Amino acid sequence: MSDDHLSRLSLNQETIKQWSLPELTEGCVKAGVGMVGLWRAPVQEYGVERTARLLADAGLTVTSLCRGGFFTALDPAERARALDDNRAAIDEAAALSTDTLVLVSGGLPPGSRDLYGARERVADALAELAPYAATRGVRLAIEPLHPMYASDRCVVSTLGQALDLAERFPADQVGVVVDTYHLWWDDRAPAQIARAGAGGRIHSFQLADWITPLPAGVLLGRGQLGDGSVDFREFRRLVEAAGFDGPIEVEIFNEALWARDGAEALAEVAERYVQHAC
Amino acid sequence: MSDDHLSRLSLNQETIKQWSLPELTEGCVKAGVGMVGLWRAPVQEYGVERTARLLADAGLTVTSLCRGGFFTALDPAERARALDDNRAAIDEAAALSTDTLVLVSGGLPPGSRDLYGARERVADALAELAPYAATRGVRLAIEPLHPMYASDRCVVSTLGQALDLAERFPADQVGVVVDTYHLWWDDRAPAQIARAGAGGRIHSFQLADWITPLPAGVLLGRGQLGDGSVDFREFRRLVEAAGFDGPIEVEIFNEALWARDGAEALAEVAERYVQHAC
Repeated sequence: MSDDHLSRLSLNQETIKQWSLPELTEGCVKAGVGMVGLWRAPVQEYGVERTARLLADAGLTVTSLCRGGFFTALDPAERARALDDNRAAIDEAAALSTDTLVLVSGGLPPGSRDLYGARERVADALAELAPYAATRGVRLAIEPLHPMYASDRCVVSTLGQALDLAERFPADQVGVVVDTYHLWWDDRAPAQIARAGAGGRIHSFQLADWITPLPAGVLLGRGQLGDGSVDFREFRRLVEAAGFDGPIEVEIFNEALWARDGAEALAEVAERYVQHAC
Repeated sequence: MSDDHLSRLSLNQETIKQWSLPELTEGCVKAGVGMVGLWRAPVQEYGVERTARLLADAGLTVTSLCRGGFFTALDPAERARALDDNRAAIDEAAALSTDTLVLVSGGLPPGSRDLYGARERVADALAELAPYAATRGVRLAIEPLHPMYASDRCVVSTLGQALDLAERFPADQVGVVVDTYHLWWDDRAPAQIARAGAGGRIHSFQLADWITPLPAGVLLGRGQLGDGSVDFREFRRLVEAAGFDGPIEVEIFNEALWARDGAEALAEVAERYVQHAC
């Protein structure tokens, strides 16, 4: 496949979780993939500055850092800790020279049934964090997760809800993530992608396929591109029609993919990306 | 608890699946529950006419029959079989003296990624079946299922989508099911419930709670009322504000509930219903 085909592809490191950061770096360079999305835990383990140097020396660009968020606690001390942790995540994003911090809002606090209140606490947290992020050159990208995560992980379930929150803030401070895994089922997603693009709020575009049966806990069942129900070419057409021309990040959580040789798994990802999303 | 409290309660038989139809009948009469929702397979096994007599003799009312649907096949022969099966389901509903047949639309055909086309095939099937159902005094009730079932079970994922389909037909022929398990996460549900009520299209109101972690396959993880994230009193307020005053059916698929003594499980359902939905 041609360089041209892979020029927009970013590999989210969780897709080839079996790789250390040096392995990821070497593997991407060998495969002709010039961009990566990172996660905080492995980066912290390797060292933030050390990761930044490793990637810069190899000529790799960091397209996003996952993730901040978890803003829905009712307890003031827990809430203060979450804000502190998000300021640290913003600093890490800046140190890695990425302009995009992905936010997962958090679920319902134990015993609560108040989705509306939880979403308002997300807005309150954004109001505190967005100006700080702006001073570090970092944009906050709200990721709506599939409604099956609404209680325990993310009370923001649709792109419409994410935009309702984001639009309270300047577009260069708060935007959204368009992730096919979370949005593929929603007949309102096309109109909301257009809305997001018109406002300059598509900060990240991520791909994973939807496959069934879902595993227990529904966290690690994302599909390799082409194995499931998502029409990637149509999603790419929608974001591009909305003005998005940024990186296309593949982020798949799948235990079968993690059990394979990393280079082989990445080669398949690249091949499927070209086949289904180019 | 008073009779008055239970006067609106209907027990969907799948909630106490361990009971045979005679056990269900006896158990409901003993517990002061005067209405039941039925499923085709156990009714067919016991005999449709025989079930109708059993329930009528005990003074029990059938509030709904689950289920018809599965309209999304592309293969003409498979599609014809589905329509035949749905005509049989309509006849069974009429024989059981219930006016409501619950429809689950069906998922994507193997290899298809076309949700829009699948939803249009649902509309085509409704156009064939609704007039026949009307001659039998049966209304078709489209049940939107949670988006996590969109690929393998039901391409109708929101109340808005269900109403977009139902509103192509007369309200006394095609309506919707409002099931808390499937809709609780959706911030658009309140407005769509109002829309459904204004059009006289709330044909069934069903309760189950949302609990996590979800089990593998995500089919049997519904929660006993009060164990999860659903605000039942608010849902009841919404459907009643929209003009609905029909039966309130409890339909929980939960293996722990099925493992218990049926009378004990039903007593808990009734207690939780009064506690959380009255």
